[in-house]
Amino acid sequence: MAEVVRNIERADKGVIEKLGAAGVATVHEAQGRTGLMSSRMRPIQMDKGIAGSAVTISAPPGDNWMIHVAIEQLQEGDIMVLAPTAPCDMGYFGDLLATSAMARGCRALVIDAGVRDTRDLRAMGFLVWSTAVSAQGTVKETPGSVNVPVVCAGAAVNPGDVIVADDDGVCVVPRESAETALAGAEKRLVAEEEKRRRLAAGELGLDIYSMRGKLEAKGLRYS
Amino acid sequence: MAEVVRNIERADKGVIEKLGAAGVATVHEAQGRTGLMSSRMRPIQMDKGIAGSAVTISAPPGDNWMIHVAIEQLQEGDIMVLAPTAPCDMGYFGDLLATSAMARGCRALVIDAGVRDTRDLRAMGFLVWSTAVSAQGTVKETPGSVNVPVVCAGAAVNPGDVIVADDDGVCVVPRESAETALAGAEKRLVAEEEKRRRLAAGELGLDIYSMRGKLEAKGLRYS
Amino acid sequence: MAEVVRNIERADKGVIEKLGAAGVATVHEAQGRTGLMSSRMRPIQMDKGIAGSAVTISAPPGDNWMIHVAIEQLQEGDIMVLAPTAPCDMGYFGDLLATSAMARGCRALVIDAGVRDTRDLRAMGFLVWSTAVSAQGTVKETPGSVNVPVVCAGAAVNPGDVIVADDDGVCVVPRESAETALAGAEKRLVAEEEKRRRLAAGELGLDIYSMRGKLEAKGLRYS
Amino acid sequence: MAEVVRNIERADKGVIEKLGAAGVATVHEAQGRTGLMSSRMRPIQMDKGIAGSAVTISAPPGDNWMIHVAIEQLQEGDIMVLAPTAPCDMGYFGDLLATSAMARGCRALVIDAGVRDTRDLRAMGFLVWSTAVSAQGTVKETPGSVNVPVVCAGAAVNPGDVIVADDDGVCVVPRESAETALAGAEKRLVAEEEKRRRLAAGELGLDIYSMRGKLEAKGLRYS
Amino acid sequence: MAEVVRNIERADKGVIEKLGAAGVATVHEAQGRTGLMSSRMRPIQMDKGIAGSAVTISAPPGDNWMIHVAIEQLQEGDIMVLAPTAPCDMGYFGDLLATSAMARGCRALVIDAGVRDTRDLRAMGFLVWSTAVSAQGTVKETPGSVNVPVVCAGAAVNPGDVIVADDDGVCVVPRESAETALAGAEKRLVAEEEKRRRLAAGELGLDIYSMRGKLEAKGLRYS
Amino acid sequence: MAEVVRNIERADKGVIEKLGAAGVATVHEAQGRTGLMSSRMRPIQMDKGIAGSAVTISAPPGDNWMIHVAIEQLQEGDIMVLAPTAPCDMGYFGDLLATSAMARGCRALVIDAGVRDTRDLRAMGFLVWSTAVSAQGTVKETPGSVNVPVVCAGAAVNPGDVIVADDDGVCVVPRESAETALAGAEKRLVAEEEKRRRLAAGELGLDIYSMRGKLEAKGLRYS
Repeated sequence: MAEVVRNIERADKGVIEKLGAAGVATVHEAQGRTGLMSSRMRPIQMDKGIAGSAVTISAPPGDNWMIHVAIEQLQEGDIMVLAPTAPCDMGYFGDLLATSAMARGCRALVIDAGVRDTRDLRAMGFLVWSTAVSAQGTVKETPGSVNVPVVCAGAAVNPGDVIVADDDGVCVVPRESAETALAGAEKRLVAEEEKRRRLAAGELGLDIYSMRGKLEAKGLRYS
Repeated sequence: MAEVVRNIERADKGVIEKLGAAGVATVHEAQGRTGLMSSRMRPIQMDKGIAGSAVTISAPPGDNWMIHVAIEQLQEGDIMVLAPTAPCDMGYFGDLLATSAMARGCRALVIDAGVRDTRDLRAMGFLVWSTAVSAQGTVKETPGSVNVPVVCAGAAVNPGDVIVADDDGVCVVPRESAETALAGAEKRLVAEEEKRRRLAAGELGLDIYSMRGKLEAKGLRYS
Repeated sequence: MAEVVRNIERADKGVIEKLGAAGVATVHEAQGRTGLMSSRMRPIQMDKGIAGSAVTISAPPGDNWMIHVAIEQLQEGDIMVLAPTAPCDMGYFGDLLATSAMARGCRALVIDAGVRDTRDLRAMGFLVWSTAVSAQGTVKETPGSVNVPVVCAGAAVNPGDVIVADDDGVCVVPRESAETALAGAEKRLVAEEEKRRRLAAGELGLDIYSMRGKLEAKGLRYS
Repeated sequence: MAEVVRNIERADKGVIEKLGAAGVATVHEAQGRTGLMSSRMRPIQMDKGIAGSAVTISAPPGDNWMIHVAIEQLQEGDIMVLAPTAPCDMGYFGDLLATSAMARGCRALVIDAGVRDTRDLRAMGFLVWSTAVSAQGTVKETPGSVNVPVVCAGAAVNPGDVIVADDDGVCVVPRESAETALAGAEKRLVAEEEKRRRLAAGELGLDIYSMRGKLEAKGLRYS
Repeated sequence: MAEVVRNIERADKGVIEKLGAAGVATVHEAQGRTGLMSSRMRPIQMDKGIAGSAVTISAPPGDNWMIHVAIEQLQEGDIMVLAPTAPCDMGYFGDLLATSAMARGCRALVIDAGVRDTRDLRAMGFLVWSTAVSAQGTVKETPGSVNVPVVCAGAAVNPGDVIVADDDGVCVVPRESAETALAGAEKRLVAEEEKRRRLAAGELGLDIYSMRGKLEAKGLRYS
Repeated sequence: MAEVVRNIERADKGVIEKLGAAGVATVHEAQGRTGLMSSRMRPIQMDKGIAGSAVTISAPPGDNWMIHVAIEQLQEGDIMVLAPTAPCDMGYFGDLLATSAMARGCRALVIDAGVRDTRDLRAMGFLVWSTAVSAQGTVKETPGSVNVPVVCAGAAVNPGDVIVADDDGVCVVPRESAETALAGAEKRLVAEEEKRRRLAAGELGLDIYSMRGKLEAKGLRYS
C-alpha cells in the first residue's frame, strides 16, 4: 500500500505554461466546469498564479515523511499535491522543505492541510495553496505513497495532471486532455476580449447575449 | 415572483459619501448596533472602504443571470447586493461583469456567495465583499428579482438602502434614516477625537469614563 | 469571581525578544510541540511577528469592560490575551483601546473573538491576532477578571507567560520555562542553518536524515 | 429602540393547523421556494412537526431578558422566534422558561442560538428548533424588542407570520399570504398522491414527467 | 459531458451482504484504511446499516434532474451515490423519489448535499446518509451524468463499487477488491472476538499486545 | 514529556453522584458559569447523563496508544477525557476499548476527536461525548501522557476533576471545589422547584423576578 511511482508522464511544458497564463477560472470553464478544488483551498500569497505537473502525495494525517520521498521525484516545473488520508490541519511543510523542493525546480505546493513558515515561504517566492496555516509539527512514522491517484480538497488528481492555481483557487486538468483544455481556454480568452471591449463601452450583456426575450419567456416582469 | 423594480429611491449623495468616510464600525454604532452583516462577509482587497446605494439582487443558487438584469438598473454610485435564495459558494461574478458594472458607474459588489477573477477585480479597482472566492461557474436558467427586499449575510436590505463597507465588514443603513445615522456618526467621531487625544496622552478609560465605582459596585476586586 | 491580579511575574526581556525572533514554528518545536493556539487564530496584518508577556483577560461574551481594567495593568512589552467565557465573534477592540494600550507600551492583542477598526490598527502598527473581524459593538455590564489563568483558542495561558506570534499563529511559552525554550529554539535554528545550506545545494532529506533504510523497513516500495 | 408591540395580527387557526400538517418541504414549495431558514437550524427532537404564529424576539447576544417579556405577549398556538443581534451559541432557554411559555399555550421555540435542558424539554413535549445546544448561561442586562421584524437564520420574519417546522427545518409563511400558501400546498399534496401511486407501481419519473426528450435535447447521451 | 452508462459490473451479492454485516469500521480497516468518506456524511436514521452497489450520479449544484435518470438504471440492492459538481446543501431528494427508487429495489442514498421529507424517509425504511437536511427545492435544468467516476465527500467512487454505510459513516470498497476486503474483514472479526473476550475478562491491552516494552523504549515514564 | 501519573485524588463518590443528578446546566450555573466545554462536544446517545472522576489523556493527533495506558489507571466511576495535541476528527475509540474500560468500572468517554462503533457503544451502555463520529483508524506510534492537565474542547481539565455530562454538553468541576459546587447546585434546584410551580400556574417571570421597573428604567417601551 506504500509505494512510489518513479516514472510518470507529464504534459507538454508549453501547454502547461499557457494554461497557467489563462488562469483558473478560464481553464475551469474550458473543461466543462470540472476539476476545481474546494473553496477551502486558499493561497498564502496574493496576486500570484502558476501551473505545473502534479507529483501527488498520499500521506497519513500528521505525518510528513512522504514529502521527503516526493522531493526526490520532482522535476523542473512540478507542483506537489498532498492529500492526507484523514482531515488534518497540521503544518506539514515549511521553509526547509521548500528549500529542498526549489533546489529541484519545484516552485509550488497544493495541500489539503496546513503549512508553516508562511512569511519565509512568501519571501522565497515559493507558492502555496493550503486549507490551513499552522505551526503544528508532524511526525515521520508511517509511509504513504507518491504518484498515486489522490483526492485533494474534493478533486481527483492523477500524477502528471496539470495543476493550475491562482487567487481564485486550484483547478486540475487531466494530463491527457491538457491540449484540448488549452484550446478551449484560448478560444474563450479571445471571445472574452471582444465582450470586454463592448461591455466597457457601455453595451449591456442583456443585449450582447440576447437575453431579453428568454427572460420574458421565463416570466420576468418589470415594474 | 420574478420581477425587476426600476424606480427606487436613493439617499442623498453627500450623505452617502460621508457615511462611507465614517466607516462601518462608527455607522453601526450610530444606528444602535443594527444592520451589520455576518463576519463571514469579507473583502477581497485590503484597506479600502466605500458607501453606495443598494441595488438588490435575489438570485437562485448557482445562477447569475440576474446580475445582467441588475446592471441595467445601476446608476453612478450604486453598489450591487446579491443574496442567493439558498446557501451557495459558487463564483457568480468576475471581471467581465465588473467591466459592465463599472461602465455604469458602479464600483462595488456585496455578495453572500463566491466571486472569481479576484486578482483582476483588484487591479480594476472594483471592490468586492463576499463570503467565498471560487472559480466555480454558474448557469443562466432561472430568473430571480432585482430591487426587492433581500436578506444578505443575515442583514435585511431594501433597495436604495445605503451600504457602508470597509475592512471591518458591511453595514446596511435604511435609506430613510441615512441622515439620522450620519448625524449620530459625526457626533460620535467628534467625541472619539477628544477621547483619542486623552487616551494617547496616557489617561485611562477607567478614569475618563468614571468606571471605577461601577466596577467595584459590581464586585470587582483587586489583589 | 471577578478579580484583578496586579502583580505578576514576567520573563526576562532579552529572552522574550529572542523568542520573538525565533518565531512561532521554531519555539513550538523547541518546547515539545506544546502551547500552540488553534489555527482559527489569524493575524489581521501580514509579515509581522512579536513576542511579549501575557496580561490575560477573562471576559463575558460580548462585554469588553475588562479591557479598560486590563490596560491599567499593562507594562512596556506586554501583550493582552483575551478569552471570552463563551464563544463570541463580536468586535471587542478597536482603535481607541489600541491608542490607550500603546500609550502604556503594549503593542499587540491576542483575542479569541473579533476586533474592529482593522485598517486603523494596521496603520497604527498595533498588531492583532484574532478569530474574527467584526464591527459588532460590545457592552460594559459584567466584570470579568484580569491576570487569571485562561484558555484562549485551545491553549492554556497564565499571566506572565511569553506569547510568541507571527504569520503562522500564536504560541504560549510558560514563563518559568522561557529560558529552556529559548535554548532549544536557538539550538534548532543553528541546526536548521546547516540543513538549509545542504538542502539548497541539492542534497536530499532522504540522505541527510538517513531515511531510506527506515522507509524500506516500514514497507515502502518503488516501482 | 427597545420596544414591545402588543397587538399583532395572526393568521386563521384552521389555516395554520393545515400548513403544519402539510409540512415544511411542501409549504416551502407552495410559496415559490421562499421563507426557508438555514439548514443550521435543527430540531432537538425527532419526528415531530408543528405550526404556529410568530411572536418575534430581537435579543442582544447572550442576553435572554426579552424572553420573559415575550412570554407575556404569547397566546395559545404561538411560536417564539428569537434572533440574536449578533451570532451567539449560548443557552438562552431551558425548562423553566418552557414551563412559563406552556402555561400560556405556546408549545415551540425557534432560535438562532443555543438552548439547554434539552432532555427536560423533550420530556415536556415542548418543541425546539435551534442552531446550538449549550448549557452556557445568559444575562439579563440589556432590553431588546418583541414583535418587531427580525432576520432569523437567514429568513425574514414578521410578527404574526406563520412558522412551519418539522424534521426538515423551519419555513416562514407571511401572514397575509397564508391562505394562498395553503391552497398551493393542498394542490401539491393532491398531485403528489397520484404521483406517489404511479411511482410506487414502478412507473418512472422520466415517463410521468416526459423528461426523455428534454434530456436528449440538452445533450444527454446513453452508452 | 452528460452521459449515462447503462451497463456496469457489480460485486457478488453474497460478498456485498457480508461486507454490510461487517460494518464500516471493520471494512475500512480491512482495506488499509482507505475509502472512508468525510465525517460530515451523517445518517438521518439511527442504528441502521447497509451495503450495496454504487450507482453514481454527478449532478450540478441545486439540480436533481439526474436522479430520475439514475433510477431507471437501478437494480435490486443498489445504492445511489450523488456528488454535486459544486458544494451544495439543498434538498435534492425526498419521499417521492424514494418511492420510485424503492420500486426498483434500491433502499439507500448517499449524498454530499441535502435531503428532505426525512421523517417520511425514516417511516418508509429508506436509508440516507447526507451532509445536510434541507427542504430547499432544486431545479431540473441541466443534465449531469450517471455511472461515471465521482468524488463524494472526499472519497473516489466508481460505478459498481460496494458502498458500506452505518452509524459510523460511509466506506467505499472498489468492486474488484471486494472479496479481498471481505476476507480481511472476516479475519479481523474473528481476531476481535478473541480480544473482546480477554478484555471483558479484565486483561489489559498493554499485556495482550505486549506494549509495555515499546512504550518504555519510546520514553514513557510512570510517576 | 510522556508520563503517566498513577496516583491522583478523586472527589467524594456521593458528591459526584449528586452532581450528575443535578445535571450540566445547573452545575455550570452553580460554579459561576465556568468549566463548560464547547458546544461542538455532543453525545452519541440521547437522554442519558453521568458524572465521574476525570482520568485525562493527552494524545498525539491520530494516535490512540495512550488509551491503552490510561485504561490501566481507571477506577470504578472514572470518566476518560481525551484531548489531542492538535485538532483531529479521527476515530480513536471503539467497542474493544470500551469493553476493556468497562471491565475496570469506567462507563464514559469525553473526547475532542472522533469515535467509532457508535451503535455498539450505545448497545453496551457505554456513554460517549465527542466532537466527531468517524471510522478512521489511528496508529500507535507516539506516547502521550495520562493524568496531566489538559485543555479539552476549550475547557481546562485536571486529573481527578469531576466531569458532569448530559444532553446539554460537558461541564468540568475542579475536584477541590466539588462540594461547594454541589451545595450551590442543590440550592439552585430547590429555588427552581418553587419557581417552576409558580410559572406553571401562570405567573410571569416579569412579576416573580420584579423585572418591570428595571426594564422600563433601561428604556423598554410598549406600543
